Amino acid sequence: MTVTLAVDMMGGDKGLAVTAPGIRRALQNYSNLHCLLVGRQTDIVSLLGDLSGNPNVEIVQAAEVVDMHESPATALRSKKNSSMRVAINLVAEGRADACVSAGNTGALMATARFVLRMLPGVDRPAIISALPRADSHVHMLDLGANVDSSPEILLQFGLMAVSMVRSLEHVQQPTIGLLNVGSEDIKGSEIIKRAADLFKASEINYVGYVEGDDIFQGEVDIIVCDGFAGNVALKTSEGLAQMLVKVMREEYTRNLWTRLAAFLSIPVLRSFRARVDHRRYNGAVLLGLNGTVVKSHGGADSFAFSHAIEVAREAVENKLLQRLRADFSGSETGKV
Amino acid sequence: MTVTLAVDMMGGDKGLAVTAPGIRRALQNYSNLHCLLVGRQTDIVSLLGDLSGNPNVEIVQAAEVVDMHESPATALRSKKNSSMRVAINLVAEGRADACVSAGNTGALMATARFVLRMLPGVDRPAIISALPRADSHVHMLDLGANVDSSPEILLQFGLMAVSMVRSLEHVQQPTIGLLNVGSEDIKGSEIIKRAADLFKASEINYVGYVEGDDIFQGEVDIIVCDGFAGNVALKTSEGLAQMLVKVMREEYTRNLWTRLAAFLSIPVLRSFRARVDHRRYNGAVLLGLNGTVVKSHGGADSFAFSHAIEVAREAVENKLLQRLRADFSGSETGKV
Repeated sequence: MTVTLAVDMMGGDKGLAVTAPGIRRALQNYSNLHCLLVGRQTDIVSLLGDLSGNPNVEIVQAAEVVDMHESPATALRSKKNSSMRVAINLVAEGRADACVSAGNTGALMATARFVLRMLPGVDRPAIISALPRADSHVHMLDLGANVDSSPEILLQFGLMAVSMVRSLEHVQQPTIGLLNVGSEDIKGSEIIKRAADLFKASEINYVGYVEGDDIFQGEVDIIVCDGFAGNVALKTSEGLAQMLVKVMREEYTRNLWTRLAAFLSIPVLRSFRARVDHRRYNGAVLLGLNGTVVKSHGGADSFAFSHAIEVAREAVENKLLQRLRADFSGSETGKV
Repeated sequence: MTVTLAVDMMGGDKGLAVTAPGIRRALQNYSNLHCLLVGRQTDIVSLLGDLSGNPNVEIVQAAEVVDMHESPATALRSKKNSSMRVAINLVAEGRADACVSAGNTGALMATARFVLRMLPGVDRPAIISALPRADSHVHMLDLGANVDSSPEILLQFGLMAVSMVRSLEHVQQPTIGLLNVGSEDIKGSEIIKRAADLFKASEINYVGYVEGDDIFQGEVDIIVCDGFAGNVALKTSEGLAQMLVKVMREEYTRNLWTRLAAFLSIPVLRSFRARVDHRRYNGAVLLGLNGTVVKSHGGADSFAFSHAIEVAREAVENKLLQRLRADFSGSETGKV
């Protein structure tokens, strides 16, 4: 089965300097991958190098670029020929199975929602991503598609995540927890408490409240929260990880002796990094849309960007969208 | 000036096994520290060792212990002779300048609020703590005293934090940011947007929205958020740090070669740890009460617990409470 992905080549902090080598890496890994490279044709051609004659690569012209700080409304109204918009159009037209963009999240969500619409039975989209643990990972949503969510919407997020984990990881009854500020029943806001009641009454494998430390250390397969808390948790962990790396680097480069220790530690640090490398978890799915859209981190490097492409490829191969469509088509309230 | 602290010896996951050596460490560091050790007299005596004849130590009997998972209401109603309650009573009676407890946060907050009452002009208490950065630190609140907060309350938190940083660090115009899910003005919930308007109109040094990664990597001196987001951010970072330490340890102990690298890295890892050790940041202040109460992490070890004592000592020496009282006495709305 060939998987055709529309890739927004101009998005992200570094645009083509990251997306072009990212594409090259992804194409090396998968022979059944076909990529529609969306953006300024001349710029793309000049960076493609040995890919220019590759039959698995096709360039689709798009003259405009959505700025990383452009408002969603402006991007939607006045950038109808942006690489982001054209890539999403290709999904809507059925020419691509999914699209990938490192462009600005708000604009991507607004444009994707406008062009693709919601899945029937789903009221609000959510951003979901896998996050690393010592020996596994967790799927967490919403990472920032919404700033607040009703109990009913939180349940819908949970149901969508269950469909996704079933589809991608073939786990039939993934465990699911609600992010709260304490694990006791009495803790939390009224919205969380009412959401907990809905989760308990549903047929999913709800295990109860989880706390922030359960993201990276817990057992639960899926964590549901509103987009504000999810975004704060995600960015806090990014900042902490970067700060720790910075301090560690400073300490290892302090003098000759510490540099020797660093040299001897290379295999250790390399396998440490391989296990917790956030780049291997790059690629968040905009869940709940009538089409598959994967958001790469704006600051991703080419290795990380190739992983976002991998997330899109996996979603298509495992028929994520068809699964969601089937699970949510039954009812207007989205109950599976 | 002698600083007298009431210490809840029974609180925390390990009670006296941590608090007794923590007290010993704190007393070694400060000759002007006087501690009222609150808890079961016979248990305390048996663990005091060489401190038993120390004139800076006094035991205050309290027969009961608040369980780490007891509800605030139960602790308040039925544990009137708990070590936590008696320690807070000592502050209310003026026998201690401040109290320190590693007991359960909800019970501590409820009991302290009931016994000490709010500072005149302050509507809601907040939990504030310093968090480490590579070369500095940030003060963040609310870390979980409330699950949600109005814009007016968020402003009050900001004003209290400014008073605290002025008092403790002698910085006259600390910079202050509001935690949000994006740095643009259009981002965030209505509450955050309205809070931003209040911050802009106030006289404090408000610099705008900050995001989760600004906690450990940013520049701002104070970050204000509601207790839900703050608690999630704090616990997420705790979990991530613990996970990274676990993976690092596993990698360094994998075989003889990696153990050698670990041995040679000891000075590096030690100074790395010294710079980012969360134990040095243990001790959160329950801000806004008419008395100084410091909360130690329930899982703190004796080193961390001694730091919570240090936080209380510093608050007293720098006249934090008098400063807050002066700054908030002017008006019912808490405007300074």
